[in-house]
Amino acid sequence: MAESLSVNFSGPKSFSTKLKSKCKETLFPDDPFKQFRNEKHRAIKALQYFIPFFEWIPNYNLKLLRYDVLAGITITSLAIPQGISYAKLASIPPIIGLYSSFVPPLVYAVFGSSKHLAVGTVAACSLLIADTIGQKVPPKKDPTLYLHLVFTATFFTGIFQTALDFLSHSTITGFMGGTAIIICLQQLKGLFGLKHFTTKTDVVSVLHAVFSNRKEWRWESAVIGISFLIFLQFTRYLKNRKPKLFWVSAMAPMVTVVVGCLFAYFAHAEKHGIQIVGDLRKGINPPSIGYLNFKSEYLTVTVKAGIITALIALAEGIAIARSFAIMQNEQIDGNKEMIAFGLMNIVGSFTSCYLTTGPFSKTAVNFNAGCKTAMSNVVMSFCMMLVLLFLAPLFSYTPLVALSAIIMSAMFGLINYEEAILLFKVDKLDFSICMAAFLGVAFISMDIGLMLSVGLALLRTLIYVARPATCKLGKISDSNLYLDTEQYQHAQGFPGILILQLGSPIYFANCNYIRERVLRWIRDEQVLSNSKPDVIEHVLLDLSGVSTIDMTGIAAFREILRILEAKSIKMKLINPRIGVMDKMILSKFIDVIGKDSVFLSIEDAIDACRFSLQKEKHQNDLSDISA
Amino acid sequence: MAESLSVNFSGPKSFSTKLKSKCKETLFPDDPFKQFRNEKHRAIKALQYFIPFFEWIPNYNLKLLRYDVLAGITITSLAIPQGISYAKLASIPPIIGLYSSFVPPLVYAVFGSSKHLAVGTVAACSLLIADTIGQKVPPKKDPTLYLHLVFTATFFTGIFQTALDFLSHSTITGFMGGTAIIICLQQLKGLFGLKHFTTKTDVVSVLHAVFSNRKEWRWESAVIGISFLIFLQFTRYLKNRKPKLFWVSAMAPMVTVVVGCLFAYFAHAEKHGIQIVGDLRKGINPPSIGYLNFKSEYLTVTVKAGIITALIALAEGIAIARSFAIMQNEQIDGNKEMIAFGLMNIVGSFTSCYLTTGPFSKTAVNFNAGCKTAMSNVVMSFCMMLVLLFLAPLFSYTPLVALSAIIMSAMFGLINYEEAILLFKVDKLDFSICMAAFLGVAFISMDIGLMLSVGLALLRTLIYVARPATCKLGKISDSNLYLDTEQYQHAQGFPGILILQLGSPIYFANCNYIRERVLRWIRDEQVLSNSKPDVIEHVLLDLSGVSTIDMTGIAAFREILRILEAKSIKMKLINPRIGVMDKMILSKFIDVIGKDSVFLSIEDAIDACRFSLQKEKHQNDLSDISA
Repeated sequence: MAESLSVNFSGPKSFSTKLKSKCKETLFPDDPFKQFRNEKHRAIKALQYFIPFFEWIPNYNLKLLRYDVLAGITITSLAIPQGISYAKLASIPPIIGLYSSFVPPLVYAVFGSSKHLAVGTVAACSLLIADTIGQKVPPKKDPTLYLHLVFTATFFTGIFQTALDFLSHSTITGFMGGTAIIICLQQLKGLFGLKHFTTKTDVVSVLHAVFSNRKEWRWESAVIGISFLIFLQFTRYLKNRKPKLFWVSAMAPMVTVVVGCLFAYFAHAEKHGIQIVGDLRKGINPPSIGYLNFKSEYLTVTVKAGIITALIALAEGIAIARSFAIMQNEQIDGNKEMIAFGLMNIVGSFTSCYLTTGPFSKTAVNFNAGCKTAMSNVVMSFCMMLVLLFLAPLFSYTPLVALSAIIMSAMFGLINYEEAILLFKVDKLDFSICMAAFLGVAFISMDIGLMLSVGLALLRTLIYVARPATCKLGKISDSNLYLDTEQYQHAQGFPGILILQLGSPIYFANCNYIRERVLRWIRDEQVLSNSKPDVIEHVLLDLSGVSTIDMTGIAAFREILRILEAKSIKMKLINPRIGVMDKMILSKFIDVIGKDSVFLSIEDAIDACRFSLQKEKHQNDLSDISA
Repeated sequence: MAESLSVNFSGPKSFSTKLKSKCKETLFPDDPFKQFRNEKHRAIKALQYFIPFFEWIPNYNLKLLRYDVLAGITITSLAIPQGISYAKLASIPPIIGLYSSFVPPLVYAVFGSSKHLAVGTVAACSLLIADTIGQKVPPKKDPTLYLHLVFTATFFTGIFQTALDFLSHSTITGFMGGTAIIICLQQLKGLFGLKHFTTKTDVVSVLHAVFSNRKEWRWESAVIGISFLIFLQFTRYLKNRKPKLFWVSAMAPMVTVVVGCLFAYFAHAEKHGIQIVGDLRKGINPPSIGYLNFKSEYLTVTVKAGIITALIALAEGIAIARSFAIMQNEQIDGNKEMIAFGLMNIVGSFTSCYLTTGPFSKTAVNFNAGCKTAMSNVVMSFCMMLVLLFLAPLFSYTPLVALSAIIMSAMFGLINYEEAILLFKVDKLDFSICMAAFLGVAFISMDIGLMLSVGLALLRTLIYVARPATCKLGKISDSNLYLDTEQYQHAQGFPGILILQLGSPIYFANCNYIRERVLRWIRDEQVLSNSKPDVIEHVLLDLSGVSTIDMTGIAAFREILRILEAKSIKMKLINPRIGVMDKMILSKFIDVIGKDSVFLSIEDAIDACRFSLQKEKHQNDLSDISA
């Protein structure tokens, strides 16, 4: 033991210093500015840091380009059917889906930090937009206004994406599963060639709509749809069996669309009740910045759709980019991704695109096709431009039933029941958060399901804060370790001394609990010691885990001290952390308890307690003798 | 070091066991049932525990009664003027204020655990009720409906009081200060004898109402009011100078009322523009249970008023009871107080009483008058019954200006600027929470002020959870202590090893932050070590302060591990707590990182790291030689 070593009671830093460091810590945990401070070429370094494009483009060469071109062409073949399908899901003209694979990938290629992420539209968010905005302006009633509101929502998505990152894995798992189910069920409309359908998304309404319209069912449509579905699922099965054949499954949706088009064109499918996409004009994205609609009447729905899709698209996109980066031992920067996604959608909303993110299926294909840099997105963008300029009208013959098959096939992969089982095994609360999203989305509505789940997750956080864990510590013999007596049964206490470890933080919301809990530990301890009254003479509170405290918490300590004093129990504090110590000094609590009751280690405090216990015993012995 | 001691990897307890203990911990932190388990006379013990009356009444004797009678009569003399005044503040008939000092004290005497608390009406909550319910049903327009809604709100207050305990000291300080200011300003109406006034409570509206009605000002009223105010403040000053003269200030409001009544009766005050209370009939509380109004139309305001007043009245009452109990080395049980307050208001709402709690002024008088048990409340209740049966009509001559003076005088004591200054010094965030309540109440409205403050306090909690403190640990030489290197400058690190202490909890809301922060610590450390690449070979994460983790947190650990592995850095965990260990085992993270990478103490882990570092160095030396 270092006798010279003492507790640091030096006064706290000034408020402005603390505020500055606190703000920096809260807003920029990775301190991006630090690295430019002492460097030459500071401007270039900063540019490279904030715009990853400038970091990799100087070293780009033809060899890398070869890989990226191949990957880019492969993902284009996925982008065309997906763009058309998901635009249908969002109830907007299918050409918008193609536009959305032209501009946003270019923006991502400049600002994104992932090498593997492929930009594109996603099913869940498409349906979510349709659901949220369609409640206010039904797409069939006023398609132009509806489309403008979709652009506006995309704009808000972009705005919010630069600021938010706050969904738990469990919520995403449940939400994706629930969405996959309702999207699949919705495809029954296309599969059976129904003309009348519900605008609601929940399972009950959709099943009711499907089965109550039985006379509209078209067997021709169903046969074609199921054939396509079997084909798509087979290629998927092939890919799972032989990962090298990934390109078969990547090309399958495109094949489906082409076969569907040819069939529709030559067989005059429309006459047999098979609906086609129709109306796809040549030409690249027209500007849409003038269409953004910020009228207060519609602002609620667009902002709402913006926030929800921002959260989901970002969580999905970043998680996917991260998981591929880990495979390659590279690092994804969450903040840069947020900015890249945000800009991508803001610019997209100005150029007739709707919401894009980094969908799993496309990114996986991009990765497997051997992409090396974000250049593959540029290639896809270029290919898409060619399609828009020359080939778009050909796709107008795509049968809707082919799109339904493509969507359904994609959705099967999103129901991650293995993750749900793992959650159930490991953490029942996480499982409930997941199930709240799943069941809420499937049986009520997408936004309510999401809110239920996020609400549960927040509630859990608040309960954690309201009831921080405390435990009794005991010494492991022949060591200087003091461990939880519940976790390590052979950790032993000392007679007359109770050592408690308090959880963090100590706040207004939990200080009543902490006070009651400390007093209960003392009561329990006295019961254990065969009900001798006042058997405990010292209570040691280990504060080394308490990283912060507020004034109500300090007041609680003051009260515990007074209650213990009334019981002739001495209270000692172990290793208060820097933030806690500051407040104890400023509020004069340290003066009340006395500097000699604060110790750096449990060991030191025990030594002090034993010394005073022995002194007492000695005095008692003396008085016994004199009596 | 105990070589035989190893980390406890034993599997977690069953879900039902954990759930049961978690629920008990969350709902009953003081475990009230434990003490009855192994006792004879269990029923009697339990009765005594839950109904404190049965605990003290068997030992009650005449000597104690003498003290309690004296105290009871003293607080009655305070209850009469306060009851009438605050009922006026709540815009209900003054007799309700007297009723409210008859039934609720009896209920409290049976269920309350404090010996000193005196039950009565309070100013802040009275105004709050008037403000909240008056917005829906103005008291002047339909006084009967308004009164019934006040009873209903009181009922809800009772219901919520049995369940809530969740306001920070800072909020209460700011709220009380703000309320005191607006109540004082409102009394200018009575002081100047105004007939027209605003129903709003904010400073600007009230001052505007006072000064725009200048032609209604009555100098007679103002002179009397100011005289009374000077008298009341003088007795208060006297009490502060000589605490033994507390009874002078306790009797002063009663004297004011009696003098006011006599003056009004003999001088025919009404003719000089001095308004009197009027209409106080003989008789005790009529039942009001039939008047409770649960119509959906009014439910929002009554529930809202109920929740807000429940929070405030409870926080105030419990804090006061506690502070007096501490003076006498006794203990207050928060849960019992909640139940006592709740029952008091539920029963009150059935018997024509409005909201009551334990006001500071009355409790202090009770304490100073020498009360020994809750019997003083019973005595007050008895005295009040006599007043209601025989004397009530006499008080109908009380001039309103006297009531205004009594209220103003009481309010001056509630502006606790010393506490606000202390908050400013110790904790700027607590000060902002306090000021949000103060300024919000004073300049916007009572409920918005309170919500602003509570919202800020919750936001602070969420920010804490989102950004838990992490720090770098170093060893104090000649000891086995590992302390924060920022707090203890002489704590030294080890070459090649970085020791980080993580804050609690590790949740979906903060795991991105924790990952980025850990990686930043590593970068910073490498910068410090003169930019040698890969200078760090081991990262030790001290988890002894982390009391809980969720699945997203586990995923973050998995990711940190992979990123570190990619940088050839080894990750070691120190002392995961019982809840964290359970989840790491169940999610197989322990298998991924390996059991030999988990240590009980930093010391053990350092030993293991050094061993591997030396071995490496040795191998390097060997290869150097062979080369």
